[in-house]
Amino acid sequence: MHQQISALIAQLGLKPGDRLHTESELSELFGVSRSTVREALRLLEQQGVVNAVQGQGRFISASGSLRVERPMTKYESITEVLTGRGYAVTSAVLSIEEGTATPEEAEALELESDAPVIRLLRIRYGDDKPLVVSANTMPRETLPGPIDHRDWSGSLTAALAAHGNRVTSALATISAVELPEEWQARYSLGGLGPWLRVFEVGLTATGRRVLYALDYHLGSEISFSVLRRS
Amino acid sequence: MHQQISALIAQLGLKPGDRLHTESELSELFGVSRSTVREALRLLEQQGVVNAVQGQGRFISASGSLRVERPMTKYESITEVLTGRGYAVTSAVLSIEEGTATPEEAEALELESDAPVIRLLRIRYGDDKPLVVSANTMPRETLPGPIDHRDWSGSLTAALAAHGNRVTSALATISAVELPEEWQARYSLGGLGPWLRVFEVGLTATGRRVLYALDYHLGSEISFSVLRRS
Repeated sequence: MHQQISALIAQLGLKPGDRLHTESELSELFGVSRSTVREALRLLEQQGVVNAVQGQGRFISASGSLRVERPMTKYESITEVLTGRGYAVTSAVLSIEEGTATPEEAEALELESDAPVIRLLRIRYGDDKPLVVSANTMPRETLPGPIDHRDWSGSLTAALAAHGNRVTSALATISAVELPEEWQARYSLGGLGPWLRVFEVGLTATGRRVLYALDYHLGSEISFSVLRRS
Repeated sequence: MHQQISALIAQLGLKPGDRLHTESELSELFGVSRSTVREALRLLEQQGVVNAVQGQGRFISASGSLRVERPMTKYESITEVLTGRGYAVTSAVLSIEEGTATPEEAEALELESDAPVIRLLRIRYGDDKPLVVSANTMPRETLPGPIDHRDWSGSLTAALAAHGNRVTSALATISAVELPEEWQARYSLGGLGPWLRVFEVGLTATGRRVLYALDYHLGSEISFSVLRRS
């Protein structure tokens, strides 16, 4: 139903600000109940395609005219973030280790404290520039087998998915920071300016917390876009 | 319909990962057509309450258990951003001027180049700390009348709304930057570390672009959260 209404909008060439047909007009037009039309319209509102204005009807949304090419609300791996921005992506594995969860890691991943984890620190390069410094922690059992038989330079989310732990949603918190001084010194990453830090917990469809990430994106190169609605 | 399904989920105490009733079960239960149920479920998927897993059915979404208290996808004025984080908010107006649109402003606001605009530069304080430096440009006619008869320390979005220009959506781009050196020097804002810059174009429900904002949020104090889905 909502696909039919979307098609109608496209067919009639309705533009942002144009008034949409009423519920009863659409109900007649498509020969379905008004409640079905109403649900479809609610979905279109949710998607930001139409906008209900109190007492005036529904209008093609302004947001429809706003293009967010790679919205931050879409979960993407770092590889996707960088290739989507046109970079040729390579990785350097700085460290890979097994250990026990710190209090922060345990809280983020909902693990017992001291639960076994894997920690991976990498630099992701775009066109040979260090664009993202990525610190990841996973519960040990999400990636079974000895850690030294794995190529850690590839996609971590693909590796997780291959073990039935596909990340389908994540809660991300964005802030502006300096890179930790220890890393600046040890990995020659000083003097590059502010970094956009994305702290993120990745969940599978069944609610399992499988990835704790602290990703530092080079401020001068990487930004994120998002559509906001009142 | 989708409210009834939501109520059912709450009533049965379904938790993230639990399987939801099938379309036909829900259709029987509520005595409505399967297409109505399907639209309602699609809406719940859009809202991230349920998750369809190919061939296995629909599950209560993990995202349901993720709390984003003040998601960045919700449009908020700076006043709301800061009061929502518990700060007592005050403002200092650094400059207010009339002028003609720069090429960047004209493009962002879809104005003719050299169209008349109002420019406002402010510091927003939280508990007397400078937390946001906010540069705003509005098309001149969105706020009619001489600029010197207005109190520019209050809510700009409220002033716009009072003239029929309520901002209902915005496209925001977030990056990590240093505060422009000119401002650091002139307004004694140096040495505070990185800032989270939100570049934003605000639109009314009818698609009018009424606000162009470059807001610099103090990195050590302000962060934003967002829920991401694959």
